[in-house]
Amino acid sequence: MLNIQDPTEARKIIRNNQYDKQTAGTASQYVQGNVCILPSKYSANFATFCKKNPKPCPLIGLGAKGDPKLRDLGDIDIRTDVPKYRVWKKGKIVDEPLDIKKYWNEDLVTFILGCSMSFELPLIEAGIEIQHIKNNTTVPMYRTSIDCKPEGQFLGKMVVSMRPLSTKDTITSIEICSKYPSVHGAPIHFGNPDEIGVKDIMKPEYGDPPISFKNNEIPVFWACGVTPQLILEKSKPDFCITHKPGCMLITDKLNSDLATS
Amino acid sequence: MLNIQDPTEARKIIRNNQYDKQTAGTASQYVQGNVCILPSKYSANFATFCKKNPKPCPLIGLGAKGDPKLRDLGDIDIRTDVPKYRVWKKGKIVDEPLDIKKYWNEDLVTFILGCSMSFELPLIEAGIEIQHIKNNTTVPMYRTSIDCKPEGQFLGKMVVSMRPLSTKDTITSIEICSKYPSVHGAPIHFGNPDEIGVKDIMKPEYGDPPISFKNNEIPVFWACGVTPQLILEKSKPDFCITHKPGCMLITDKLNSDLATS
Repeated sequence: MLNIQDPTEARKIIRNNQYDKQTAGTASQYVQGNVCILPSKYSANFATFCKKNPKPCPLIGLGAKGDPKLRDLGDIDIRTDVPKYRVWKKGKIVDEPLDIKKYWNEDLVTFILGCSMSFELPLIEAGIEIQHIKNNTTVPMYRTSIDCKPEGQFLGKMVVSMRPLSTKDTITSIEICSKYPSVHGAPIHFGNPDEIGVKDIMKPEYGDPPISFKNNEIPVFWACGVTPQLILEKSKPDFCITHKPGCMLITDKLNSDLATS
Repeated sequence: MLNIQDPTEARKIIRNNQYDKQTAGTASQYVQGNVCILPSKYSANFATFCKKNPKPCPLIGLGAKGDPKLRDLGDIDIRTDVPKYRVWKKGKIVDEPLDIKKYWNEDLVTFILGCSMSFELPLIEAGIEIQHIKNNTTVPMYRTSIDCKPEGQFLGKMVVSMRPLSTKDTITSIEICSKYPSVHGAPIHFGNPDEIGVKDIMKPEYGDPPISFKNNEIPVFWACGVTPQLILEKSKPDFCITHKPGCMLITDKLNSDLATS
């Protein structure tokens, strides 16, 4: 873990290719983002796809065509400021570089989508124990049977993350997360996993399996920022770049600034 | 049902003792209140009790000692403006009059507490079907094992109201109700009734039994404004006056003004 709480300092290390792992816990007061970079011919449809599916794909930043800077989110150069990238051609990963200087071109458009780390901090501050954080594992994530609303070539199923919670903490987490619509908002489901097409709660498709469900704990599901990667895999644009899951873009925006009230 | 949507008009009829039944659906855009009137020697403790138990006892209005007017809530005279009252002596009901002119005195203090009708309207507007409203029955209410936080002589268990909802509607109702802290706020529990000491969901202690639980519906429980009557029954003040359950005070305050954001 990169235990640096200042976002500028953290990005400096990442920018110099001195850190290539997950960013959970780094600059934890600050918003981290999922990254999707696409050729401009896809950008109108992808932007609309995000707008139509705000729970899995909450758009928090958008770069100008050909501009690697994201001034609204901080002193950011998207070519270097992510610990590890994925380069995709027609839905297949062809490279996982530490920077994308050699892939960048004047036609690319950058999309930054909100991430669950921004709501986990206020949950913890409200006294809710988050199992995967306590156990230092990756949150379990599942493919569901829920269709995203399609736009042009962009379509596919929603991915969800899951946290085991008591009934009381489920209610509190819905109350808190509903104030954070730009980072997935309130959970989309709780209880019976089968209702959203999750067959085996102990076998997530991404991340680590849950440790256990205590006494009265139930599974609580949030729309997940891994969804767009599944959409890109299925929609097969000629070319695109994303972050490697877990290796997020660290911004200068405070999580608390995302709260709607 | 008194189908009048203007609160002043509705109160005029009630004031003239021309209506003595429940007020559900009357002036439905406006806040209705639970009423507790106590001798001044109890008022400090009861006010603190309400402040300590905001979910069952959300204080939305407080009269000056001896003053039957509640100017903050509208052109209200608490001696005449409730369809039916209950007069209590040492925890027992001794009268159910249409007005309390003969009981009023210079030592009484009026407390008005928020009521679930204020959050049911935004739930319906969000497309959620409320079973007891659709079937024109009274919401089922249950005594629980949850202790209110005591203050002086005021203590006892919380009463909850229950509405059967799908998982999806449960999440939406938590999101909406968390914006209405002054009318019981978010539900306090859902799912297993036994966890809060409710033994038989089909046998509520107050109101009508639920009709049924459809497919994926679960019981969702809100703190209930009947709680203070149970507290008064148990705490046995020498003398007090309440409304008869269901026969609420209609105010000039809009429900929408209660939303926190």
